Amino acid sequence: MPRSENSQIPTDIPTIRVVAMPTDTNPAGDVFGGWIVSQMDLAAGTTAAFRANGRCATIAINSLVFMEPVVVGDEVSIYTRIIRSGRTSLTIHVETWRRARHTHLTSKVTEGEFIFVALDENRRPRQLPPPQPGDELPEIVPPQQVKHHAAPL
Amino acid sequence: MPRSENSQIPTDIPTIRVVAMPTDTNPAGDVFGGWIVSQMDLAAGTTAAFRANGRCATIAINSLVFMEPVVVGDEVSIYTRIIRSGRTSLTIHVETWRRARHTHLTSKVTEGEFIFVALDENRRPRQLPPPQPGDELPEIVPPQQVKHHAAPL
Amino acid sequence: MPRSENSQIPTDIPTIRVVAMPTDTNPAGDVFGGWIVSQMDLAAGTTAAFRANGRCATIAINSLVFMEPVVVGDEVSIYTRIIRSGRTSLTIHVETWRRARHTHLTSKVTEGEFIFVALDENRRPRQLPPPQPGDELPEIVPPQQVKHHAAPL
Amino acid sequence: MPRSENSQIPTDIPTIRVVAMPTDTNPAGDVFGGWIVSQMDLAAGTTAAFRANGRCATIAINSLVFMEPVVVGDEVSIYTRIIRSGRTSLTIHVETWRRARHTHLTSKVTEGEFIFVALDENRRPRQLPPPQPGDELPEIVPPQQVKHHAAPL
Amino acid sequence: MPRSENSQIPTDIPTIRVVAMPTDTNPAGDVFGGWIVSQMDLAAGTTAAFRANGRCATIAINSLVFMEPVVVGDEVSIYTRIIRSGRTSLTIHVETWRRARHTHLTSKVTEGEFIFVALDENRRPRQLPPPQPGDELPEIVPPQQVKHHAAPL
Amino acid sequence: MPRSENSQIPTDIPTIRVVAMPTDTNPAGDVFGGWIVSQMDLAAGTTAAFRANGRCATIAINSLVFMEPVVVGDEVSIYTRIIRSGRTSLTIHVETWRRARHTHLTSKVTEGEFIFVALDENRRPRQLPPPQPGDELPEIVPPQQVKHHAAPL
Repeated sequence: MPRSENSQIPTDIPTIRVVAMPTDTNPAGDVFGGWIVSQMDLAAGTTAAFRANGRCATIAINSLVFMEPVVVGDEVSIYTRIIRSGRTSLTIHVETWRRARHTHLTSKVTEGEFIFVALDENRRPRQLPPPQPGDELPEIVPPQQVKHHAAPL
Repeated sequence: MPRSENSQIPTDIPTIRVVAMPTDTNPAGDVFGGWIVSQMDLAAGTTAAFRANGRCATIAINSLVFMEPVVVGDEVSIYTRIIRSGRTSLTIHVETWRRARHTHLTSKVTEGEFIFVALDENRRPRQLPPPQPGDELPEIVPPQQVKHHAAPL
Repeated sequence: MPRSENSQIPTDIPTIRVVAMPTDTNPAGDVFGGWIVSQMDLAAGTTAAFRANGRCATIAINSLVFMEPVVVGDEVSIYTRIIRSGRTSLTIHVETWRRARHTHLTSKVTEGEFIFVALDENRRPRQLPPPQPGDELPEIVPPQQVKHHAAPL
Repeated sequence: MPRSENSQIPTDIPTIRVVAMPTDTNPAGDVFGGWIVSQMDLAAGTTAAFRANGRCATIAINSLVFMEPVVVGDEVSIYTRIIRSGRTSLTIHVETWRRARHTHLTSKVTEGEFIFVALDENRRPRQLPPPQPGDELPEIVPPQQVKHHAAPL
Repeated sequence: MPRSENSQIPTDIPTIRVVAMPTDTNPAGDVFGGWIVSQMDLAAGTTAAFRANGRCATIAINSLVFMEPVVVGDEVSIYTRIIRSGRTSLTIHVETWRRARHTHLTSKVTEGEFIFVALDENRRPRQLPPPQPGDELPEIVPPQQVKHHAAPL
Repeated sequence: MPRSENSQIPTDIPTIRVVAMPTDTNPAGDVFGGWIVSQMDLAAGTTAAFRANGRCATIAINSLVFMEPVVVGDEVSIYTRIIRSGRTSLTIHVETWRRARHTHLTSKVTEGEFIFVALDENRRPRQLPPPQPGDELPEIVPPQQVKHHAAPL
């Protein structure tokens, strides 16, 4: 198992990190795309609910691209970043990275934008609270600027 | 349980039709958005694989909008239609409709565009075969033009 | 992938239509029979709940035969038809058809009869409401009478 | 939690015994009938494969009756007994019993007959081996003959 | 498929007995260790809830050893025995045994100790009720003392 | 939703981070302990496989304590650290932390020690490779030393 010299694992803390299991595969034996989108939606929803300080719902997904397949055993990490903030809505950039088991070798698998709206008790749009100091989310470090990161674990 | 007078169930044959189960819910108790996207991806993939006469992979999702939540027990129907066809790729319009259990009441839940590329044995893009007579897919009948449809089953 | 000349896909609208996934297999690698019966039960339950205009429970399964295995990737369609109607009960004929991915080739996988009873709020048998015009369910067209059906999707 | 005086737990060793979990429920909140049939099919298949000394497939289910619902948390026990043996086929009587959590209270939930055929490497019917001394399966003791059974665990 | 002469299947009634399915595997293709611990926890919890005549929670797991892998298709049996009983807590010895499909061949897969505490309505520790005659649980018969057991079902 | 002043989220990168879903609950409605141990086992296995530069198997779990329940919607983070390294084995300390949705409030849920052995192609113990600079895993920062951490995402 080779270990990459110029590994490109983002140094951020992932919003979600899981291991892809046999139960997540599609009929072709790869990890099912729908499962990956599910993880992205969960991750973006976590970031949205935290910023909105309450319940949010996904209202749209845009520009979601799939770059390469994920295989069983991969460590799958989802990184999120708020890129736009409206009166009641949040646009969140989401990236999925895979790391092949036993190795440093990582690559970007998908990226896309998820739009959420904050909801009140009656499921109606609700104004976002003002940002708090603790709400600044760490930026996704572009992979080309990432130095060798020794231990992804 | 009221039965709608102007029920808007598409008359098409759905590509996928399932019943939403408790295991498909999110922490808020609604059916999980990622599960719905999974069903849409499976449905679009079925249509793509049939037209391409072989394996396809999702490469992008665009303009996916979520209009209302799905609840446990809903009959969830996914309708697909090929709207663009390139040399190796297919763009598929996908609509999700829910029908509340015991009733005629239906409504559109999501819609979006899924882009697939046909793959060869080595996972490289493969030219689509010429369309065959059997490949014309039934159009999604716009709901506003649908008359009362007696039996949704 | 050959495409059948005398494809026998029923022209009806399926009550349930899904894609068999790796997670649905048994230890022998085929799709698990219990999973197929689950889909049949869900489909029959949908038809029963619609006709009964409310909650129903399965009380018996009879004459359920398994004709051939389903494999991962198959499109699995469940067709239902009410064949007997008592004061509180419904007997529903259920057929499962598979279509091998990428092809027109279909075949009947299982058929059987599911008996349901309509229940009231306290789980006691409840008289069925009188049939409504919208309750006539489309008949399952016997496969031998089905002409070539261009687009199974 | 009362403990029954005339508890009717079969004294046999169950072929399958599980705890019903929230993930096994249907939209009405009861344990899904399809899940119960799945467990019965698995149990009957275990008994068939053992007697046939190799692979078997379910070919029919008959006279399957559902007596009462199973609820989340119930201990669900499946008992099996070979009641007919042909040249290549086995008919297996299957009973499902529930025990309400924390109590001695048990009741029969379903029973039915599952028919299996022994298969060879090419999935063709295969003659059953002659019975061996070790193949006599313990009979299901009819519940009315069962004395109070102190410890169901 | 050979049948063992000195098969060592415990003669006790298992607390849980299931068939390992493809959906329970880890990336290496074996049955996932976490799934096995889940079954052990469920089994010990059943024994604890029965003895405590009410709700219990796992508070610790100790000395849990994994002796050999479980493969898909194995019959997996979990045996439990209360080995210590405090004022509010119970220590339960748990053993997992596999039987290779079609055979008499069995072996111990894991064993360990699970500690539970009885809880009241407010999730606070609750005193155990005095033991009742029905609460004596059958001992796990040490395998070396088990004679050939004809029917593992 | 209050936000804690002295939030104690570890600053480390979690080995696994997921959102607890309704499908992960036990009959009492809490997140199932077996599911939590599964995530801990997956996390420890990821760390072991990375250090061992190849396949590993869990051989024991010790001193695993459950401090408080996890509820649906919680963000569940698993932190791992190698605390002992033998010729072929690794002992890994694993902690699980929950963060209540929408809040900064976190707490430790479980901790324990997982022991792995490195395996060769034939599943026999294999000597660990010498440590590489990239193998030093970040320490789990004891919570009491953690300053207010603004953004847990």
